[in-house]
Amino acid sequence: MSDIRKYIAECVGTMFLVFMGCGSAVLAANHVGNLGISFAFGLSVLVMVYAIGPVSGCHINPAITLAMLVFKRIKTKEAVWYMVAQFIGAAVGAAVLYGIANGTVGYNILINGLGQNGYGAVGSPGGYCVLSGALIEFVLTALFLFVIFGAIHKNTPAGFAGIAIGFALVLIHIVGIPVTGVSVNPARSFGPALINLIAGNSFPMSQLWLFILMPSLGALFGGWMHHVIYKESN
Amino acid sequence: MSDIRKYIAECVGTMFLVFMGCGSAVLAANHVGNLGISFAFGLSVLVMVYAIGPVSGCHINPAITLAMLVFKRIKTKEAVWYMVAQFIGAAVGAAVLYGIANGTVGYNILINGLGQNGYGAVGSPGGYCVLSGALIEFVLTALFLFVIFGAIHKNTPAGFAGIAIGFALVLIHIVGIPVTGVSVNPARSFGPALINLIAGNSFPMSQLWLFILMPSLGALFGGWMHHVIYKESN
Amino acid sequence: MSDIRKYIAECVGTMFLVFMGCGSAVLAANHVGNLGISFAFGLSVLVMVYAIGPVSGCHINPAITLAMLVFKRIKTKEAVWYMVAQFIGAAVGAAVLYGIANGTVGYNILINGLGQNGYGAVGSPGGYCVLSGALIEFVLTALFLFVIFGAIHKNTPAGFAGIAIGFALVLIHIVGIPVTGVSVNPARSFGPALINLIAGNSFPMSQLWLFILMPSLGALFGGWMHHVIYKESN
Amino acid sequence: MSDIRKYIAECVGTMFLVFMGCGSAVLAANHVGNLGISFAFGLSVLVMVYAIGPVSGCHINPAITLAMLVFKRIKTKEAVWYMVAQFIGAAVGAAVLYGIANGTVGYNILINGLGQNGYGAVGSPGGYCVLSGALIEFVLTALFLFVIFGAIHKNTPAGFAGIAIGFALVLIHIVGIPVTGVSVNPARSFGPALINLIAGNSFPMSQLWLFILMPSLGALFGGWMHHVIYKESN
Repeated sequence: MSDIRKYIAECVGTMFLVFMGCGSAVLAANHVGNLGISFAFGLSVLVMVYAIGPVSGCHINPAITLAMLVFKRIKTKEAVWYMVAQFIGAAVGAAVLYGIANGTVGYNILINGLGQNGYGAVGSPGGYCVLSGALIEFVLTALFLFVIFGAIHKNTPAGFAGIAIGFALVLIHIVGIPVTGVSVNPARSFGPALINLIAGNSFPMSQLWLFILMPSLGALFGGWMHHVIYKESN
Repeated sequence: MSDIRKYIAECVGTMFLVFMGCGSAVLAANHVGNLGISFAFGLSVLVMVYAIGPVSGCHINPAITLAMLVFKRIKTKEAVWYMVAQFIGAAVGAAVLYGIANGTVGYNILINGLGQNGYGAVGSPGGYCVLSGALIEFVLTALFLFVIFGAIHKNTPAGFAGIAIGFALVLIHIVGIPVTGVSVNPARSFGPALINLIAGNSFPMSQLWLFILMPSLGALFGGWMHHVIYKESN
Repeated sequence: MSDIRKYIAECVGTMFLVFMGCGSAVLAANHVGNLGISFAFGLSVLVMVYAIGPVSGCHINPAITLAMLVFKRIKTKEAVWYMVAQFIGAAVGAAVLYGIANGTVGYNILINGLGQNGYGAVGSPGGYCVLSGALIEFVLTALFLFVIFGAIHKNTPAGFAGIAIGFALVLIHIVGIPVTGVSVNPARSFGPALINLIAGNSFPMSQLWLFILMPSLGALFGGWMHHVIYKESN
Repeated sequence: MSDIRKYIAECVGTMFLVFMGCGSAVLAANHVGNLGISFAFGLSVLVMVYAIGPVSGCHINPAITLAMLVFKRIKTKEAVWYMVAQFIGAAVGAAVLYGIANGTVGYNILINGLGQNGYGAVGSPGGYCVLSGALIEFVLTALFLFVIFGAIHKNTPAGFAGIAIGFALVLIHIVGIPVTGVSVNPARSFGPALINLIAGNSFPMSQLWLFILMPSLGALFGGWMHHVIYKESN
């Protein structure tokens, strides 16, 4: 059955996205800064589009899969398994990262974190309130899906989608890291929150709801904007 | 009527350009520096070319639309509506950014600004005089249009225009931010100036004339250079 | 005999990779930081794909050649000569770099190094233990080959492979430099270790085994993952 | 006569390269660092390939034109006029930059320079000796031409040459700025040296010989390496 290969691809792709993206924040933040973290997240998606795109389409993000489902580009059963695979992959990626980070003296997940997302005085890197966090996750995910639907449109020459989508995520992180650390991807938020919970820090999991809700709403809005402007169902 | 979709596309595209570009300056400047801001502006255009290019051509800049009009690549009526849509989008983008920036303690638009452009001892980030500001806006916009006309030329393989144009804007910002903050786009200057005015700071609006005049003249010069070199009307 | 040109290409390509990648670390690290070093290594591969790709396929990495051999994309005899050429090229590149670095007062290879890889309290830039070093080299090389096999797959439009592979190496360095300095390439580790040995520092050579073993295992795992997901032998 | 358009294109392209590249060093160095300057030089070439490539081939570098002449890709008379146009464009670009830089209090070309190249204790940013400077200019220009000839080879898909060549120059600057400021282009060195001379600083002009000689030799060596490896005259 060929579908199982798609689900493995989504699982592996999301694992690499979380490992490399959050890995840049955990292992290298004081060497590469927010700009380096932004490139790490964006280039992770860029390279995965070439690595697994021909197999699964490279969603590696439940908010993207949701938009693809609502706008009838994927079947319901397949979308559910995509999301399951993405959440599993994100958890594995965060776990492997935790294993490596522990290999240096002085790393403590309760102090240094694992690249989790958050809002408010404690959770937001820049101390932004919950409304700012919700609004920016909505806007950034809407932008992301707006670009994705355009980049995979039949009028766009094949091969450029990975570049457009990857650089969109670089851009999104440059702007948004100070506000929420940038999710725009419920699975990417779930992985580090789960490992934090297991390690004794339940705070990231308590804020996970926002990073499931707002990226999902933003993704639908971005997809809707695309369809308004392009009119045809493409 | 299909034209309305083009105008919506230009409005949405300019909104995202101003929100993300100025957003990087307002929310993330002390994390990503001028290089990060340069990538934010340039990648905003790069991704919008893929998001709305097939619908409207992705001008999202009244100086580009003016050059397209003068060199007979767009009709007058359409050009006017493009510009109206661009100015509206820029204002909305700046307004949304202001809403999010307000969500952190200590942000004050009168002190921290909203990514506005300026010249002279007060307005220029590096204290450059009005002549330096005017000259660099002219040269940078001429370069921008010179690249744009080349990148959309029929001899250039399809799909690369977004990369060339987006990276041109990255380059333009790397060089020019210390002088004027870089406009090369009257709408991009108008949005933050308007929100500043509403918030009680009329200074950016008082300098807006330069960021309408010089990008417009530069765009025409850049387009003229292209046509001299390429000879044919292409 | 045309094969000799392939071996020269691999030798020259690996020479440039080591000279430019390690050169960024030795000559420019305190100017461009880890992000600049990451771009130097990644862009070295990106440009070499265009420079020698049509001749040899641009492996310039024995771990890649090993994976190509195991997955039957290159003949045994050719693979052996590829690897010999890569190790020679890496040694030459490191030697030329040493010659240039010596041209400034205050450079001392025993203190400043030559961009070598390492693990543990002394060898790892961030003091990561041997297990963390082994694990990250395995994961990063697996990711690298996973992307490479996808990028050269027949369904990917020609020309994009260099971009995907080069940016994958940028990404890999952003994340991994603090742990091991990032090898993912036995030849890249061999060159600086040899010159260090000649200059009287045997330490990098004593740790070379890990940067031969783990990238090789990771490359095979990455290639295996690709073939599981893509099923066909392609 | 259509050749005149080629020469204008080379003049304008070199003007923009010098203005933007050296401009990033003069106006923005303490904001974007060497990494930003590297992107400025590289992206200047990348965008010019799209802006003037279809007209003149976008050499904008006498060392490239020399290699094209020796390897019989351009006629002698044309090559001479290309070089004349490049030197004129470089001088104009440096002059415009000087005009803008003067617009801020505290800028003094005798102290702050104009992005000139140099070697030795005084001329080299990192105090590298003349031999290191000569060697790195030779190696970097050889790499540059080696990539250029590969990227414009008939087997490379059209449109990617600009990306490969532009990113090659980014890479070259990341590594080489501390040694000589990076020339690899006699015209790029001539422009700032001339304006320095006019402003009363003859030192850069006294070192210009190295930045004419070594890039020229390196370019020929890089072109020769390409032809050895590719065998056919392509």
